[in-house]
Amino acid sequence: MGEELIGVIRGLQEKSARKILLVVADGLGGLPMEPGGPTELEAAHTPNMDALARISSCGLLEPVGPGITPGSGPAHLALFGYDPIKYNIGRGVLEGLGIDFQLTARDVAARFNFATVDDSGKLVDRRAGRLSTEENQRLVKKLREGIRPQRGVEVFIETVKEYRGLIVLRGDDLSSDIHDTDPQELGVPALTPRAFAARAEKTAALFSNLIEQTAAILKGEKRGNMVLLRGFARYEPLPTMSERYGVNAFAVAQYPMYRGLARLVGMTVAPHTGSTAEDLRVLADNFTGYDFFYLHYKKTDTRGEDGNFAAKVEAIEELDRIVPELLALRPDVLSITADHSTPCTLAMHSWHPVPLLLHSPYCRVSSGARFTEKSGATGALGLRPSTHLMPILLAHARKLTKFGA
Amino acid sequence: MGEELIGVIRGLQEKSARKILLVVADGLGGLPMEPGGPTELEAAHTPNMDALARISSCGLLEPVGPGITPGSGPAHLALFGYDPIKYNIGRGVLEGLGIDFQLTARDVAARFNFATVDDSGKLVDRRAGRLSTEENQRLVKKLREGIRPQRGVEVFIETVKEYRGLIVLRGDDLSSDIHDTDPQELGVPALTPRAFAARAEKTAALFSNLIEQTAAILKGEKRGNMVLLRGFARYEPLPTMSERYGVNAFAVAQYPMYRGLARLVGMTVAPHTGSTAEDLRVLADNFTGYDFFYLHYKKTDTRGEDGNFAAKVEAIEELDRIVPELLALRPDVLSITADHSTPCTLAMHSWHPVPLLLHSPYCRVSSGARFTEKSGATGALGLRPSTHLMPILLAHARKLTKFGA
Repeated sequence: MGEELIGVIRGLQEKSARKILLVVADGLGGLPMEPGGPTELEAAHTPNMDALARISSCGLLEPVGPGITPGSGPAHLALFGYDPIKYNIGRGVLEGLGIDFQLTARDVAARFNFATVDDSGKLVDRRAGRLSTEENQRLVKKLREGIRPQRGVEVFIETVKEYRGLIVLRGDDLSSDIHDTDPQELGVPALTPRAFAARAEKTAALFSNLIEQTAAILKGEKRGNMVLLRGFARYEPLPTMSERYGVNAFAVAQYPMYRGLARLVGMTVAPHTGSTAEDLRVLADNFTGYDFFYLHYKKTDTRGEDGNFAAKVEAIEELDRIVPELLALRPDVLSITADHSTPCTLAMHSWHPVPLLLHSPYCRVSSGARFTEKSGATGALGLRPSTHLMPILLAHARKLTKFGA
Repeated sequence: MGEELIGVIRGLQEKSARKILLVVADGLGGLPMEPGGPTELEAAHTPNMDALARISSCGLLEPVGPGITPGSGPAHLALFGYDPIKYNIGRGVLEGLGIDFQLTARDVAARFNFATVDDSGKLVDRRAGRLSTEENQRLVKKLREGIRPQRGVEVFIETVKEYRGLIVLRGDDLSSDIHDTDPQELGVPALTPRAFAARAEKTAALFSNLIEQTAAILKGEKRGNMVLLRGFARYEPLPTMSERYGVNAFAVAQYPMYRGLARLVGMTVAPHTGSTAEDLRVLADNFTGYDFFYLHYKKTDTRGEDGNFAAKVEAIEELDRIVPELLALRPDVLSITADHSTPCTLAMHSWHPVPLLLHSPYCRVSSGARFTEKSGATGALGLRPSTHLMPILLAHARKLTKFGA
């Protein structure tokens, strides 16, 4: 759906206290392990979701486009109704969201790798022997203590994981139009950050200086005496869900990336939770204060990435067991879907559409007796881009008025 | 799908040796002869395709848009992932492709009709009494011998069929922005080729001179003493499938039009074949050298155009019998679909979506037990524009990497 349609939707906002609960079972969509076999969802025993499906509309959502395997960022943005191609969030920013670093509109962020160079400055290892997270933390501490700030900008250096980190420059008139410094090969020096637009000259010079300081500080380290920067990205807060849809949104998610994405679209984000039981309590505690709720359930994706069919089936069954508690909150609209598929047979995200269930007093019932990819394919909501979901949820919550007379 | 999405797809290319085999059964989609009756595909006995369908994803493809009956050109371009509305190939060029005339980027082509004018130059027959192909060939020979070339351009005159021909001007800075010369009525003279853009003035003058020479050479012919030109078109090679998708494509087709279309998108085209058995041999012989294969099967369309239900059913059954040989090639992705529908009850191309079957280790199974239009409507791939097919094929062949993080 283009942003054009969102313009229309925006003009149709109608006040309603009705509550929408969107449950995103990460990576829920699956595939059979062998031709003709059941998908994870089909193999799972899901009496609660199946009973709900019999009085709900089902469908399929395609996250970004045909054949396109989405990352978590674009897949979630699409569910929240943001065209993931238009709002293509830069890598640096996503990395920041992923470690819950609170980016501001004055920030340019980049991912970095610790790398190793020889005495002549030539790269011998682009990942510094995949050094440990502890080693990373030690080097980051060293950098934080050693780097002398430049005029008018602040610098933030953060450990992400293993050899990966995040570097953020905060200041006025910064630009992210800068080429990566990773030459993608060994035996050559790291590239200097080069602007590909005039407005980025100043920022590129600031990053150059930072890299020089870094090299000086890390000189003598056997592994990780250099950094390679990529994915320079400015943090540009998106138009909020409140502006676009008139909803007051609340997010419950255990992983920083999803909390970051929710924050990016203006949701109030619950403090970090550590279990599904805790998630449900936070949700219940805040259920009166908001009218849109995003609950993220990660385990389905994790098990899918592991390629562990039985474990993903179990994760789905665990999800099924919380459905009564979700219904007990009495949301006016309850939707269960996924950001993307993570079939065990691929052990990674995939391009396959995701199953969608939508329950409200105003939904047409599908023919499927279960909640599966198959019942989605023949369901009342059909196959649609994921960006269609938000307007449909809003409509079922009576938050959209008539278009035209 | 817009070209915007193709831009995204282009950025996601990933090297993979996996092979895609796309079988286009021309005009396969059909209709019942009477309300509630079976379509041609439903009436056919297709044990091989049905068995395959049970372990494949099914769907429906809409070639150009809702209600739009496509010609073979746009229908095929859509299957190859080219927006058929953006890449609207001119008539003159399609005619050239249809007779396997090897157009170059310096060419402007136009279709022509032999017509008959009276002594005062007024049209008395816009199709020269539908003269025979042999008569056409005689007149073309006369023209080829008589026409004196103009400076800096080459002229090619070709018989197409009956009263129809192709005229091509090859030279520098030619333009096709020229109005048709067919006045579409009798009792008036043929129009002179008139430029509708300044850049086409020179080309229009060249065509004017050609038509004058033609009239002089054909003076005295009872039928076919004039030519009417229409569909002026420049040949602009399209971005190739290799550029767009990173595939190395090979085409097997018996009819020149389809070979021409395959060449237009940069496929390597097998030499002319005369039978399906020969097609399969050529395919097998070249199966190691490429990673995308387009096999065109014409008979389903021909029988549909004939309005002969029983014969189209037979053509479908003949197609079904080659499925084991296709599977024996062990393509990683096998897709059977159509460019457009050609229902016998209409005896012409139609606007109806076409059935789609996609077999790979990564496909969701549909509920239909057969390969029909009906199982497509409830299939895992849903109803989509034909332009979605290429990205989906590429994804199933693991030739696309993840979008975003």
